[in-house]
Amino acid sequence: MASSEDIVLSAVLNLLSAFAFLVAFAILRLQPINDRVYFSKWYLKGIRASPRSSGTFVKIFVNLDCRTYIRFLNWMPAALRMPEPELIDHAGLDSAVYIRIYLLGLKIFVPLALLSFAVLVPVNWSGKSLEQTEGLTFSTIDKLSISNVPDASKKFWAHLVMAYVVTFWTCYILYKEYHIITTMRLQFLASENRRPDQFTVLVRNVPPDPDESVSEHVEHFFCVNHPDHYLTHQVVYNANNLAKLVEKKKSYKNWLTYYQTKYERNPKIKPKTKTGVWGLWGKTVDAIDYYTTEIEKLSKEETIEREKVMSDPKAIVPAAFVSFKSRWGAAVCAQTQQSSNPTIWLTQWAPEPRDVYWNNLSIPFVELNVRKLLMTVAFFFLTFFFMIPIAFVQSLASIDGIENKLPVLRPLIQMEVVKSFIQGVLPGIILKIFLVLLPMILMAMSKIEGYTSLSSLDRRSATKYHFFILVNVFLGSIITGAAFEQLQRFVDEPPSEIPKTVGVAMPLKATFFITYIMVDGWAGIAAEILRLVPFVMFHLKNTFLVKTDQDREQATDPGSLNFSVSEPRIQLYFLLGLVYSVVTPILLPFIIVFFAFSYMVFRHQIINVYDQKYESGASFWPDVHRRILTGLVISQLLLLGLLSTKNISKSTPVMIALPVLTIWFHIFCKGRYESAFVKFPLQAKIVKCLVQDAMVKDTLERATEPTLNLKAYLKDAYVHPVFKGVELDRPSAVDDEENNPLVPTKRSRRSSKSHSEEGV
Amino acid sequence: MASSEDIVLSAVLNLLSAFAFLVAFAILRLQPINDRVYFSKWYLKGIRASPRSSGTFVKIFVNLDCRTYIRFLNWMPAALRMPEPELIDHAGLDSAVYIRIYLLGLKIFVPLALLSFAVLVPVNWSGKSLEQTEGLTFSTIDKLSISNVPDASKKFWAHLVMAYVVTFWTCYILYKEYHIITTMRLQFLASENRRPDQFTVLVRNVPPDPDESVSEHVEHFFCVNHPDHYLTHQVVYNANNLAKLVEKKKSYKNWLTYYQTKYERNPKIKPKTKTGVWGLWGKTVDAIDYYTTEIEKLSKEETIEREKVMSDPKAIVPAAFVSFKSRWGAAVCAQTQQSSNPTIWLTQWAPEPRDVYWNNLSIPFVELNVRKLLMTVAFFFLTFFFMIPIAFVQSLASIDGIENKLPVLRPLIQMEVVKSFIQGVLPGIILKIFLVLLPMILMAMSKIEGYTSLSSLDRRSATKYHFFILVNVFLGSIITGAAFEQLQRFVDEPPSEIPKTVGVAMPLKATFFITYIMVDGWAGIAAEILRLVPFVMFHLKNTFLVKTDQDREQATDPGSLNFSVSEPRIQLYFLLGLVYSVVTPILLPFIIVFFAFSYMVFRHQIINVYDQKYESGASFWPDVHRRILTGLVISQLLLLGLLSTKNISKSTPVMIALPVLTIWFHIFCKGRYESAFVKFPLQAKIVKCLVQDAMVKDTLERATEPTLNLKAYLKDAYVHPVFKGVELDRPSAVDDEENNPLVPTKRSRRSSKSHSEEGV
Repeated sequence: MASSEDIVLSAVLNLLSAFAFLVAFAILRLQPINDRVYFSKWYLKGIRASPRSSGTFVKIFVNLDCRTYIRFLNWMPAALRMPEPELIDHAGLDSAVYIRIYLLGLKIFVPLALLSFAVLVPVNWSGKSLEQTEGLTFSTIDKLSISNVPDASKKFWAHLVMAYVVTFWTCYILYKEYHIITTMRLQFLASENRRPDQFTVLVRNVPPDPDESVSEHVEHFFCVNHPDHYLTHQVVYNANNLAKLVEKKKSYKNWLTYYQTKYERNPKIKPKTKTGVWGLWGKTVDAIDYYTTEIEKLSKEETIEREKVMSDPKAIVPAAFVSFKSRWGAAVCAQTQQSSNPTIWLTQWAPEPRDVYWNNLSIPFVELNVRKLLMTVAFFFLTFFFMIPIAFVQSLASIDGIENKLPVLRPLIQMEVVKSFIQGVLPGIILKIFLVLLPMILMAMSKIEGYTSLSSLDRRSATKYHFFILVNVFLGSIITGAAFEQLQRFVDEPPSEIPKTVGVAMPLKATFFITYIMVDGWAGIAAEILRLVPFVMFHLKNTFLVKTDQDREQATDPGSLNFSVSEPRIQLYFLLGLVYSVVTPILLPFIIVFFAFSYMVFRHQIINVYDQKYESGASFWPDVHRRILTGLVISQLLLLGLLSTKNISKSTPVMIALPVLTIWFHIFCKGRYESAFVKFPLQAKIVKCLVQDAMVKDTLERATEPTLNLKAYLKDAYVHPVFKGVELDRPSAVDDEENNPLVPTKRSRRSSKSHSEEGV
Repeated sequence: MASSEDIVLSAVLNLLSAFAFLVAFAILRLQPINDRVYFSKWYLKGIRASPRSSGTFVKIFVNLDCRTYIRFLNWMPAALRMPEPELIDHAGLDSAVYIRIYLLGLKIFVPLALLSFAVLVPVNWSGKSLEQTEGLTFSTIDKLSISNVPDASKKFWAHLVMAYVVTFWTCYILYKEYHIITTMRLQFLASENRRPDQFTVLVRNVPPDPDESVSEHVEHFFCVNHPDHYLTHQVVYNANNLAKLVEKKKSYKNWLTYYQTKYERNPKIKPKTKTGVWGLWGKTVDAIDYYTTEIEKLSKEETIEREKVMSDPKAIVPAAFVSFKSRWGAAVCAQTQQSSNPTIWLTQWAPEPRDVYWNNLSIPFVELNVRKLLMTVAFFFLTFFFMIPIAFVQSLASIDGIENKLPVLRPLIQMEVVKSFIQGVLPGIILKIFLVLLPMILMAMSKIEGYTSLSSLDRRSATKYHFFILVNVFLGSIITGAAFEQLQRFVDEPPSEIPKTVGVAMPLKATFFITYIMVDGWAGIAAEILRLVPFVMFHLKNTFLVKTDQDREQATDPGSLNFSVSEPRIQLYFLLGLVYSVVTPILLPFIIVFFAFSYMVFRHQIINVYDQKYESGASFWPDVHRRILTGLVISQLLLLGLLSTKNISKSTPVMIALPVLTIWFHIFCKGRYESAFVKFPLQAKIVKCLVQDAMVKDTLERATEPTLNLKAYLKDAYVHPVFKGVELDRPSAVDDEENNPLVPTKRSRRSSKSHSEEGV
């Protein structure tokens, strides 16, 4: 167990490394040569021009103005200065709401930390249970935790009350935040300019028709079923080949520009190239001629392929984007069931054009279900048994394994340095590589599941990643052991034992998590602002690959907030904060520093660097909300388990109310706000009545009974039974007035109202 | 443990009692005096006239035609004779689908029973494990069960394969049945005559408006937001007082008719009555005069109350039934969110007028959530702790308890007969009274939860009752002990132990459940057809209360299928069948007899007796489907637990796939069919986009940009990225043609199609 001196040392080290990252960032960002890395968003927006175009040669690359270095931390206030509405305008609602998650962390944990320090720390400190137990090693941090309170002490009521305060405060802040974000989202949606996805519906599983093509079938169907609103449609082509050709042509065009520029600068030497891969071998030819002819060839191929795709019925996917004359028509179509067979003509709001994930548009209904089943099973095994293949690879990468498989390498392996590297570092690196690859694996799984928009893929992957972190990082650190061992234990232990086992181990792990927060949270976030990978990539590309201005623009990878990876990581901090706020309050300041620092860093990044791939209007918020509440329930159950070992009578009934209330609060919020967030709902397509049938009936009825007075028919249908059979005179003039679909004036409405009331 | 002789004896006894009921029914139904009890549906339909009107005096009451008694079972073929379409027409889809549940039981269990008897019974019989164990008492039934197979025997693979067969066969039959019933439902809805609820939407949580009444506010709102479709609306009055007055007036009118008839028959005696309660005491007055004046008085009061209700704004509930000009308009309104605040203007399809539960229309959103929370907690306690208050009452009703509370009764209690009654029978009666009251308690709880239609109340109560039966009858019989003891055990035992504990106890309880099936299933159903309670009530009323013809009509209680009570009971039989089909196949024939007999009895009842209160178009089927699948999963888990104690390697991984597949099958069916059943969805109001906002935007846009060519704007929005930027000529004539909202002819569509494809 780490002593408090170790913690202080670790804190100093991590603060120093974070500081080093910040200084490096402060210096690097001021160099004009790095301008595109650290201000890429402004370049993309076209507001900032390259500083290279003016000044002396040195000044182009290095900033020699010493005064700017003095204020090396001035990006921090600058990041905080931009007001929120401007931020939404500048970076989009997704980003603005994303950084509010960090702010939410501050809002929850700052008051809780103050209260905990005022109440729980003195209570724990005065417990003196640890000092009285002989033969126990403990640190100052343990003396501040709940472990220091003796069994069956009345002091535990302070912790119980604190658990209630934590729950109610968290729920209150979450409720307020949900309200704010709903308002922001609705305002954002209302203030947006006209966007195509507001008028468009994605139709999938168009049934095959022997007589008509997909396009004809779609047009026919919507002309019949939405005659007043249907405007146009766009079929979806399976154009993977064509996409490849277009990509190739683009690359060739780029090379052509490069050689042309080269030739213009130095008209004496005709640039040459080789026809082989990457121009490295093959026949040497005139570069400009070669690329010109190649591009012409490709253009022809492209035209042929394009025509082939358009004329070949097999290249048309049974899906279409159908546009309507009004938002209302689109809303109606997206939200209703089109056919009595609920597995065909599936409609949903079309995602934003940039948000569409094209490859998944054509998956049939049954296949979609099978894919989901397979991925659920696969994810279960991935979460609980991922250590088995990793251990296998690690055993292969051991000294014996390598010696067996590759005897050639034996002399190399016998060297002391290599040996110690293989023994000490390689297993860790293999695990680390897996953990880095994990989000990509999860994203691939989500893609197989068949979601049709990037935003839903991101959200789905985040859910998976959150569960993985919960099991393997949080529980895996508290109860040491691989996940499948935990699974075994959970199956074999009584459910009441699990919170106890985890709850009892929990206070002992506080120091571990403090170190974790400092390494992953503090230094990790500071590394984020330095953007080491894009920084190196940009300079590598700039030196070796960049040929044209267009290339230079593409060499900068502005990156984006990777919701599917970073949101689950934030959730770990929420979980730690909620779990330890009652048990070991000393952990809270570390989390607060993480939230505050991250808030500043990410605010800076979204202002200056990131470029979001799509804009979903903060539709991820219900997920964030739900996961924080999950963390809250976990913290309550663990505290329940912990307290049940402390011989306090009646603590269990008092504690059991908290998860019930929290789950109810979740259901309440879901009913209250979630509907505003479901715009691209695959799971929400629990669709209802049959518009097609209704429409057919309306049409038929109008044809057979043109003179039907529906109003008279319906007049008394919904009268309370006690009013039935009472016949009062009803002036006939009222009917004419009420048939008027315009909004009546207040006066006429009131008079018609009073009439109709008499008439009832 | 009951021996096989006991079972045979019990079977004979129950068969005899069932036979006695049937004979009694056969005799009673032929007596003209009972005609109204056993053919009430025909009277209600007005097809059958009272047989009393003709014939001699004796013949009116007793059937003397001996020939009819010979064919005393001929109601059975008669019940089966009516073809299904006619049955739907005669009794409604709800009833027709309800008896299909019994048919479903036959379809599932008859083939399974044949297979089990062909395969498992010989396998079990040849196990001889029980005979080899010394000191064990066992019956023939046990020798046919899985208990007879020795540990670690290869014979268990037969049971594993059988478990797969059971799962796949059940799922296959369920899938087919879901398909058939969906088709039946859609046909039924399509063939129905015009019904008001097809045009009407129930709007709840109308927000208060300081300037307008509820009615004005509703009209205003829908005129603005659904101008083309809004037709009329009906506010909901809180008219409980008025309902009482109407009821009273009706009773007085009935008395008046009675006395008038009496006076006409015997004009010499002026009929007298007393003004007190039930005409038993008080001043004696002339009856006809008295009731005439009373009715006049009540009529005046009624008019005043009616006007008061209509003019008093407080009597108007913030809810309304809004009707539309077309089914389509109503569908749109019911399925969309009306306001950006999702807790006001809640719309849902209006229930059928007779299906409305008026008292719940005005509950505000937050209160609804609180009520649901409270009822969930209350139901939890009811299920697991109901034995505690019962035990308390039972202790009060013990001899000591009565002696303490009521010393007066001491001499009575000391009598031997009374003493043994109190000791032996009273506790059982108290429990039985609770169990009889239970469905009413559950219904009351569902009413508190705030559902707005009788059908949803029924379905909700059925869910609760099903859970109660599962915990207290099924599990409670297998693991003996009160529910809260089970709960304690489930919390304290590892989850892997629970299926083991229950699974091991399961084969031993087969004889108990066989007896249960015979008592509750066979004799109980035979008692159902006799309709003892309505029979006695009718004759009591007929003798003492009936005064007029109208009274006689009301004296017959036709009753109805009580879905909330009887469906969960059927589910118990499905569960028993699925659980024991692999373990003790000898139980299956008993269940098959139950299903076959019930099918016949209920088919007879819905043809001749029952009168349904509402028609929901079989909207309960998803519940039935889900509960059978729940039973299937329970049976798989129990078999898994049982087999895991038998030392068969690899049985667990083979078995664990079954529940996963079953749950997936459930999700698949839900996606495939459930949307066709959700017409009155409170829970399905996971509503989507904001129609109000969309409409406002459309209107604004039309005003500000009247010349906007939306189509040109949208033309290329949903083009796959690789097609972007390719400009091809697009004939302008196409646009005009495609703007035409009418269905184009095939030719013109095809040409416009080919144009637009070129244009992409």
